[in-house]
Amino acid sequence: SEYIAPCDCRREFVSGFSGSAGTAVITNDKAALWTDGRYYLQAEKQIDSNWILMKDGLPDTLSQAEWLTKELPVGGRVGVDPYLMSSETWKPMDKVLKEAGHMLVPVSQNLVDLAWEDRPTPPQNPLMVLPDSYTGQTWEDKVLKVREKMKSKNCGAFVVTPLDELAWLFNLRGSDIQYNPVFFGYVVVTKETVDLFIEEERLVSSVKDHLRLNGSSGGKVAVTIHPYGHVGKFVAELVDKVEGKIWINPKSSFAVFNAVPKNRRYVQPSPVTAMKAVKNATEIAGMRRAHLKDAVTLCEYFCWLEKEVPKGTVTEVSAAEKLENIKRGQKDYISLSFDTISSTGSHGAVIHYKPSAETDLPLSTSEIYLCDSGAQYKDGTTDVTRTMHFGTPTDFEKECFTRVLKGNINLCTAVFPQGVKGHMLDTLARTSLWNVGLDYLHGTGHGVGAFLNVHEGPCGISPRVSLTDVPLEEGMILSDEPGYYEDGKFGVRIENLALVKKADTQHNFKNKGFLTFETITLVPLQNKMIDPSLLTEKEVNWINDYHTQVRDEVGAELKRQGKQEALKWMMKETQPIG
Amino acid sequence: SEYIAPCDCRREFVSGFSGSAGTAVITNDKAALWTDGRYYLQAEKQIDSNWILMKDGLPDTLSQAEWLTKELPVGGRVGVDPYLMSSETWKPMDKVLKEAGHMLVPVSQNLVDLAWEDRPTPPQNPLMVLPDSYTGQTWEDKVLKVREKMKSKNCGAFVVTPLDELAWLFNLRGSDIQYNPVFFGYVVVTKETVDLFIEEERLVSSVKDHLRLNGSSGGKVAVTIHPYGHVGKFVAELVDKVEGKIWINPKSSFAVFNAVPKNRRYVQPSPVTAMKAVKNATEIAGMRRAHLKDAVTLCEYFCWLEKEVPKGTVTEVSAAEKLENIKRGQKDYISLSFDTISSTGSHGAVIHYKPSAETDLPLSTSEIYLCDSGAQYKDGTTDVTRTMHFGTPTDFEKECFTRVLKGNINLCTAVFPQGVKGHMLDTLARTSLWNVGLDYLHGTGHGVGAFLNVHEGPCGISPRVSLTDVPLEEGMILSDEPGYYEDGKFGVRIENLALVKKADTQHNFKNKGFLTFETITLVPLQNKMIDPSLLTEKEVNWINDYHTQVRDEVGAELKRQGKQEALKWMMKETQPIG
Repeated sequence: SEYIAPCDCRREFVSGFSGSAGTAVITNDKAALWTDGRYYLQAEKQIDSNWILMKDGLPDTLSQAEWLTKELPVGGRVGVDPYLMSSETWKPMDKVLKEAGHMLVPVSQNLVDLAWEDRPTPPQNPLMVLPDSYTGQTWEDKVLKVREKMKSKNCGAFVVTPLDELAWLFNLRGSDIQYNPVFFGYVVVTKETVDLFIEEERLVSSVKDHLRLNGSSGGKVAVTIHPYGHVGKFVAELVDKVEGKIWINPKSSFAVFNAVPKNRRYVQPSPVTAMKAVKNATEIAGMRRAHLKDAVTLCEYFCWLEKEVPKGTVTEVSAAEKLENIKRGQKDYISLSFDTISSTGSHGAVIHYKPSAETDLPLSTSEIYLCDSGAQYKDGTTDVTRTMHFGTPTDFEKECFTRVLKGNINLCTAVFPQGVKGHMLDTLARTSLWNVGLDYLHGTGHGVGAFLNVHEGPCGISPRVSLTDVPLEEGMILSDEPGYYEDGKFGVRIENLALVKKADTQHNFKNKGFLTFETITLVPLQNKMIDPSLLTEKEVNWINDYHTQVRDEVGAELKRQGKQEALKWMMKETQPIG
Repeated sequence: SEYIAPCDCRREFVSGFSGSAGTAVITNDKAALWTDGRYYLQAEKQIDSNWILMKDGLPDTLSQAEWLTKELPVGGRVGVDPYLMSSETWKPMDKVLKEAGHMLVPVSQNLVDLAWEDRPTPPQNPLMVLPDSYTGQTWEDKVLKVREKMKSKNCGAFVVTPLDELAWLFNLRGSDIQYNPVFFGYVVVTKETVDLFIEEERLVSSVKDHLRLNGSSGGKVAVTIHPYGHVGKFVAELVDKVEGKIWINPKSSFAVFNAVPKNRRYVQPSPVTAMKAVKNATEIAGMRRAHLKDAVTLCEYFCWLEKEVPKGTVTEVSAAEKLENIKRGQKDYISLSFDTISSTGSHGAVIHYKPSAETDLPLSTSEIYLCDSGAQYKDGTTDVTRTMHFGTPTDFEKECFTRVLKGNINLCTAVFPQGVKGHMLDTLARTSLWNVGLDYLHGTGHGVGAFLNVHEGPCGISPRVSLTDVPLEEGMILSDEPGYYEDGKFGVRIENLALVKKADTQHNFKNKGFLTFETITLVPLQNKMIDPSLLTEKEVNWINDYHTQVRDEVGAELKRQGKQEALKWMMKETQPIG
């Protein structure tokens, strides 16, 4: 999982390092921590002298396996909790160790847990049923579709391990992990059975009704509940119970992967990944509602900032808190979808900046403010970035903003045939920056869940080519978020979510069908940051049309919610340009 | 090799099928031929009823290995000439066969050769020395640079197998394969020795002098000549002679690959591939000279066509012959660089159409003519496509031409940072077509050799992502050739070669350095095919600037060569538009 629960912060417990990416390796006399360039400084501060910092990404840094082959005496055994390492990571490490005469060994009792006396208990929060009016499809129908996919690949069983896939499949949501409405569990689907691994006490009465565990027959989709910890043994025993192959996602833990003998494994991306990525009409309608509400909160927020920032009393942290408070007022609001990036001036150039008491700075009228925020509503997940100036931006700041905006527009107005993968569109968001020698060092877009994880595979828009990337399809929702970051000075990012939809083209080459995007984020782009002299007529029209749509749709909702001041601010910010 | 000599057309001899891609598999009672969609029709015509046609690319077609596992009794042995299958192809096939209880077996006596009584003798044409004034670097310097690369990878030896790498490394050229100025051979470079495998009688006196085989000491780069057929044994014996790994290109034959034990192999793309792809100043100057001469021949040719086509006496074949005759008149002309694609009307939509007596059609004033041609000059290799109409094109033909031209311009004017690979630019050549629902089913660009193969790796511009792709670098030369093909009606392609060069940008993000292209093909774009209403101001300016350059440079050369009529035609075709 991208985000984890406190009980799973084992590397932080053992090393002190709290970054989102890192691996600790401990031998009898040494301890080493690998992390990447984003975290060198933080890791140096957090680990003590018992630890060696291994800077991933530098040419001279040994990999974990290389370091181990140097450190270990011949025949060394390297223990790993097999539930915490994916089979994809396990196999190449195992290969290098084997070639050097060592072994990677699954350890059934996690050694950190033995040492961690005050380890938080794993979350046991009750689950929530998401009604069909939000999901558009019953969980039974989803299971039947999964079985069709299994049949087409001659698989007798399918093991679901990603938490968001489990939540999606059963139309259930949880709160075991901050910002991600998921819950701990596994499910195994066979032709005849559905076995869910979760502690039974978590299933409140409504969930039991939903899963038809209260006496009514589930028929072909009857669910059997097992304790969470029984999954490994169950999967191992599947081999004798079902015919055909057993479908395992290559990102599954090595424990699950290894429970199935090699000749029975069908190792391919989960069919649920692709099904979940394509939103149905109900989910799309929900995402639109969520974005309309979210636009209302951002209009209210930016209107408030415009008044308050000049007083000098608003800081990055207090601003983020204000925004969260505003969002809480919306219907079906559940939580933020990630830590709000509320950053002023040079902090805006720290791409994953999270304001904290130690770094907090006041917002001012002399610096750019970048705000990347999102929320979970029962009807959808949002993720939007706006970059504002509450004083007078410099010409260079305006140029950067305008070039980023050109990239955003160039991507979301692209027309492309079916079959095109996201990486083939990434360049479209960059050419306006490349033309003057600028760029940004992150991808341009990620998939977004429908009241699920804000980062969701398999689709994405990035210069990096992923082997599991799939063509863009009607109904997928992705972010469109080019940026520009001037180290030590400011950051600009403009992020909208966009729905992939059919394009209306004059021709239809080889009956491929053509696609384009519809922007579903409806938040004003700050007029004062735009330099119209850098825009084409087509771009000016796009901005004016977008702002007209904001006036129509967000305007109506602001009125309905009686937010007059925010409405006035929105009308001012959406005046035609050019 | 992409192109092969007549003595190596074994699949054609045994099956009758002459296409450029296909594999024949023969068991004791069956014979099957695999080929792809380009060749289904041709193969059906050419093979007889003894053969089963296996249509590669259709979902239900078994792979060769799958078919063999079905056909063979348990424990089947599948013989392959290991010099004719790359290790990349061998390994996956071997794996599938092994899993089914069969074996892939290297066969030292090629069985087709035993049956092929009138097999042509392998070419033994004398080699040609390419002076340093053409290559810009001595072969000794190249060998020393190869040794540096070997050292940096701890390799004690390096086996060169691709023919164009051999020719490039020694500044030698041959004529063993039509259109490709290469010769059969292998070379093994170690820290101390250079062993060349070639029949000694082919080395004329100038070549022996060049390689310092006539008594003068070669010092650290002394070359030893061995018979061509001794390479396998020599590579096998290397293992005991040198320290460190032995560098083998994964595209090497299985014979060479397998001669080295697994733990001694360093299997990575050849360092020569990357060195050869980046042209030095002398090679670039040569490529420019070659393109200037080539432009002269095309002006002469199109001028002649414009006069002759209306008479109805010119056919696709006679036109191609005329063009070859014209090209022969240029200094340092060696041969064509591929079969001229001279195609009228619907033939233009057959992407790799080669006119022949059976398909020959007259050119007319009512159809589009597409001409894709290239030549080998001692100073460089050319490859250019122009699409013309000798009557009045339809609005749709003009629209297609103009959109293809927009794609060509959009790609060659792109500015991009160092590190960008070709596949990241491919989309730029397509958006003008995609916008109206059109596309083309081929890549946009390939690397081109300097008086070497017209298709040269490792760089390319394609939607397909190649794992061996490398970032574009200053000095690489690639084609820029978007197209549009209306089946049964016409084809449009506009192809220029473009040199990757430094871009002059206002900023230089993270000191990456920015690159762009310079078009080195200088042949007029037919004015009457252009619809200026579809062009931006920037595009109109690009076309007018390009035509001004053609007037200046090609005009001067046409004058120098006294080709008045062609000069007049060129001036007419390069009038400013917009």
